[in-house]
Amino acid sequence: MLLPQINQPGDLKKLPAEQLEPLAQEIRQFLIEKLSATGGHLASNLGVVELTLALHYCYDSPKDKFIFDVGHQAYVHKILTGRQEKFDTLRKYKGLCGFVKRTESEHDVWEAGHSSTSLSAAMGMAMARDLKGEDNKVVAIIGDGALTGGMAFEALNHIGHEKKNLLVVLNDNEMSIAPNVGAMHNYLSRVRSDRHYLRAKDDVESLIKKIPAIGGKLARTAEKVKDSLKYMMVPGVLFEELGFKYIGPVDGHDLPKLMETFRQSDNIDGPVLVHVVTTKGKGYKPAEADSHKWHGISPYKIESGKTLKSAGNPMYTEVFGSTLIELAEQDERIVAVTPAMPGGSGLMAFAERFPKRMIDVGIAEQHAATLCAAMAMEGMKPVFAVYSTFMQRAYDQIVHDICRHNANVIFAIDRAGFVGADGETHQGVYDIAFLRHIPNMVLMMPKDENELRHMMKTSLDYDKGPIGFRYPRVNGLGVPFDTELKNIPIGSWETVREGENCAILAVGPMVQTALAAAELLKSSGIQASVVNARFLKPLDENMLTDLADRGVKLLVMEEASQAGGLGGAVLEFYASKGIAHAEVRILGVPDCFIEHGSIKEQQQESGLTAENAADLVREAVTGSRLALKAGLPS
Amino acid sequence: MLLPQINQPGDLKKLPAEQLEPLAQEIRQFLIEKLSATGGHLASNLGVVELTLALHYCYDSPKDKFIFDVGHQAYVHKILTGRQEKFDTLRKYKGLCGFVKRTESEHDVWEAGHSSTSLSAAMGMAMARDLKGEDNKVVAIIGDGALTGGMAFEALNHIGHEKKNLLVVLNDNEMSIAPNVGAMHNYLSRVRSDRHYLRAKDDVESLIKKIPAIGGKLARTAEKVKDSLKYMMVPGVLFEELGFKYIGPVDGHDLPKLMETFRQSDNIDGPVLVHVVTTKGKGYKPAEADSHKWHGISPYKIESGKTLKSAGNPMYTEVFGSTLIELAEQDERIVAVTPAMPGGSGLMAFAERFPKRMIDVGIAEQHAATLCAAMAMEGMKPVFAVYSTFMQRAYDQIVHDICRHNANVIFAIDRAGFVGADGETHQGVYDIAFLRHIPNMVLMMPKDENELRHMMKTSLDYDKGPIGFRYPRVNGLGVPFDTELKNIPIGSWETVREGENCAILAVGPMVQTALAAAELLKSSGIQASVVNARFLKPLDENMLTDLADRGVKLLVMEEASQAGGLGGAVLEFYASKGIAHAEVRILGVPDCFIEHGSIKEQQQESGLTAENAADLVREAVTGSRLALKAGLPS
Repeated sequence: MLLPQINQPGDLKKLPAEQLEPLAQEIRQFLIEKLSATGGHLASNLGVVELTLALHYCYDSPKDKFIFDVGHQAYVHKILTGRQEKFDTLRKYKGLCGFVKRTESEHDVWEAGHSSTSLSAAMGMAMARDLKGEDNKVVAIIGDGALTGGMAFEALNHIGHEKKNLLVVLNDNEMSIAPNVGAMHNYLSRVRSDRHYLRAKDDVESLIKKIPAIGGKLARTAEKVKDSLKYMMVPGVLFEELGFKYIGPVDGHDLPKLMETFRQSDNIDGPVLVHVVTTKGKGYKPAEADSHKWHGISPYKIESGKTLKSAGNPMYTEVFGSTLIELAEQDERIVAVTPAMPGGSGLMAFAERFPKRMIDVGIAEQHAATLCAAMAMEGMKPVFAVYSTFMQRAYDQIVHDICRHNANVIFAIDRAGFVGADGETHQGVYDIAFLRHIPNMVLMMPKDENELRHMMKTSLDYDKGPIGFRYPRVNGLGVPFDTELKNIPIGSWETVREGENCAILAVGPMVQTALAAAELLKSSGIQASVVNARFLKPLDENMLTDLADRGVKLLVMEEASQAGGLGGAVLEFYASKGIAHAEVRILGVPDCFIEHGSIKEQQQESGLTAENAADLVREAVTGSRLALKAGLPS
Repeated sequence: MLLPQINQPGDLKKLPAEQLEPLAQEIRQFLIEKLSATGGHLASNLGVVELTLALHYCYDSPKDKFIFDVGHQAYVHKILTGRQEKFDTLRKYKGLCGFVKRTESEHDVWEAGHSSTSLSAAMGMAMARDLKGEDNKVVAIIGDGALTGGMAFEALNHIGHEKKNLLVVLNDNEMSIAPNVGAMHNYLSRVRSDRHYLRAKDDVESLIKKIPAIGGKLARTAEKVKDSLKYMMVPGVLFEELGFKYIGPVDGHDLPKLMETFRQSDNIDGPVLVHVVTTKGKGYKPAEADSHKWHGISPYKIESGKTLKSAGNPMYTEVFGSTLIELAEQDERIVAVTPAMPGGSGLMAFAERFPKRMIDVGIAEQHAATLCAAMAMEGMKPVFAVYSTFMQRAYDQIVHDICRHNANVIFAIDRAGFVGADGETHQGVYDIAFLRHIPNMVLMMPKDENELRHMMKTSLDYDKGPIGFRYPRVNGLGVPFDTELKNIPIGSWETVREGENCAILAVGPMVQTALAAAELLKSSGIQASVVNARFLKPLDENMLTDLADRGVKLLVMEEASQAGGLGGAVLEFYASKGIAHAEVRILGVPDCFIEHGSIKEQQQESGLTAENAADLVREAVTGSRLALKAGLPS
């Protein structure tokens, strides 16, 4: 066994090159075994075993800087940099992070979670290096999917212009999470396989070699074009046009070839793009066969490849997907738009049923949002299905193109609230704060999956501007579905438990937590109301006015940033009406980034528990100040 | 005179083609004359006179849809669609908008103000058209500068893949507002002029023609490469690789050639990109000579080209620029980063003094933000100089790359608050709301230009994470500068006027308005304190606690979105401390988009006046509810 001897990149460099191949196989086995227990991003990491080995063998981390785009394909890097023993805790609370994490290792120099940031980061590090007069290498490792994100192009445009020394490794596995779409993908496919490139390159070179033997005018003409032919007859002409030296395509599982290529790239001045072709899931049959499914996987049986998924009620995501089909059957104006997440957003069945009305734009949230605005203005009903965290990337387009135009775009905001094992880069806790100040916006969250269906109906019937519904990354409550879908009056809240002089205004899953808190309060003789505050904007102003008039003390409870959230909105409403006697407390996500773990652990760390809610209500009612049991919601 | 007869595109079509040239000259004269009185975007509109005429002559607006990227180059379009008479009101309150505006005309089908949205909009309209089974043309007119914005690439990637019928007119004038940077720009320059393209194309064609005359093996080799040579020897290979049919470059001032090209493009199935080369400022010598200066211009004398700028104190932008040079003289880690706005951001002198430390990334806010994060992590002090409104486009990168990494990036947020004539697409009224909920962020706004300088010093000395200072698009107050720059304690506010039982917490320029309100209140016998609430985050919690303990009634006054702003932050603070007796009102920008006009008019429309502030304070102090004089700050 070689792997146990490798505790840092220096150990790897001591191995003779021919031992890397057996080491690669050990790493594959390690990954397949460890992830069968923890789950995680298996397919992408199996795809980069040789690539990561070659990088660490050829370069000198941490002096040389490896920047992994998205960062979920850095498991092999973690294995080679002293973290083998922590893989049993992968993606668990206080355990090994599923992404690059600077606090874990000096070899982790850049964190991500969202796509397409690596080229900008590499450029920043290269510019800093040159200004400081240092000379380390900077290497960005980016997938072909991430290359479709607009900011990656912004970076290419800048890097190609400034001609900085840096290496871009394009890890081309023909996939984002789903199979890639887009012209860039088509282009890369041609580069890999098309005779226009591969054969023409050889043929033209041979033609040019022979031309000097020809006499007369033809020879002179031929001579004149020689340079330009050479210049153009390279497969990566698109990257060359943007100022990069292109090398490839290279087999990403051929270790000697990879290392030869990296050494070759070191002799080139200016930015180099090495195009590496890898197979997602390489070396594990089930993952090779269905790399989409095996992108992020729950624990599985190694032999059969069967995942050990716990049974449960359908997830909100699934209810969204099936309900959208129901609605789309009745209204042909409905189209679904996804930024490269057809599976994650529960839209696979929709895509099969309505292929022409399913628009996957690639990793391109900005384009998706503006596309939706234009479609809405032309009378369609675009449903922009997007994770809360990725929606952040379309903030300007939501302000400038959707809300300013008051376009009838429907936002289906998935993974709102905590997301669990993906951790701090993926938490969906800001969308209330970044959406509710935008004019014309309507925003909802359901208390259960049945209400989600009514909110979808409400959104699709609403024709006064943009409207969105957010839902969590959890199983539904298992409530029965109403037979008929109905419209929920815009801005109306719902009292789900009647109480006396205090009320908890709760959002989404927090309605259940609030009900539990109300139960706890009974022992103190306090009868708390619980309100399903299902509209984040507009508020139920009548109910708020009534509650204040009756002297009811309020606790707003939301699994979302405490700053700028519903609590703030309620306070602002009272302030705007000059209602000074309202008494409001807020229990939301504190002002810090919450790391990976289970959603329950994240709620506890944030203090979003029934116990804390009960304590805060008790404090408000009795007037005595109590210490919270956990979390930082000061 | 032809122009007075043209009230709609139908009138234009009645003219024989040879009359378009004289009409173009009349339009130029019209623009030069009208804008000499009103100011406006002269250079870009002079550049597109023939282009706009050719489009309206060849196509059938509004059935065919023209989508102008950014939309400040649509003056000619406005002239041709019935709005000649309104040009005296250009960019004035309730007058003709400087951008495309749907409420003005059915020919205005898409509004913008921010760059690079037109391709996504065109794709949305084309997809909607095809789903509805209609057959109109969709034409996006986009500048070469806008093409560097990442979302434009996201759209190219999608359009090239889907092969929708739409026409992209690339208006290549080699400028954003400043001269363009970036690899795409270099590429377009080569396309326009480089022998690799223009000569090689002819030469290769001639070579191919002659090859059949050669016998033997060479002929066969040559034959094999013929197709691929043809395929590659087009100037717009980059666009062709992305799935577009490329036509060009075409002289954008040659009307017959333009019209012939558009007709040619109509015969092509799928997306077409027509590359049109124009001269910014065409036909007006001063504007041709310095199109950067003449991009957006104040009123001027036609003969001399001298602008009639009213004298005044230096603008905040200028103070920022000169102070940054002072600070950079003493600290070589300071670099300035701009997304294509070196002039607008007051950085021209900095660029001259420190060319290597001036980074213009093109129209690429996302890349700029992430680049700054990486540079900061490598020990540099990047100052990201960006307008508040354009900062919106980097929201995700600010959350995910800067604040999550807690990187020491300095944000210089220009044009915060109302921006005047540019209107609703450019208002800088959301940055407090979209920044203050992000963990690790520190955000300030100075009461005057002297304090701006101290805030810059404070920001550059601060080493605990991201920090920003926002400043308005106005002249400074003319206050003297302190000789020494000092650090302002983080989170400290400043009482600028002592009062009794009420206080106005004012942000930035509102400090002056608050002082005026305090003067007005004297007549009612009310002595109001005025606090310079110079930290938006963190708050001055000691002062807030003290004010509440003393029973002082508060008015928060901010030229920023009332939802999610400082007022909300103050309320949330009191709620989190269980301080129920605090009484707070808010006067901020109401929940709607505020259109173009002077900044003063925009303040009045929003109710941000000393009179309203005084009324609200009077109401709070006396307990009686009064009607506000204007605006919608309910």
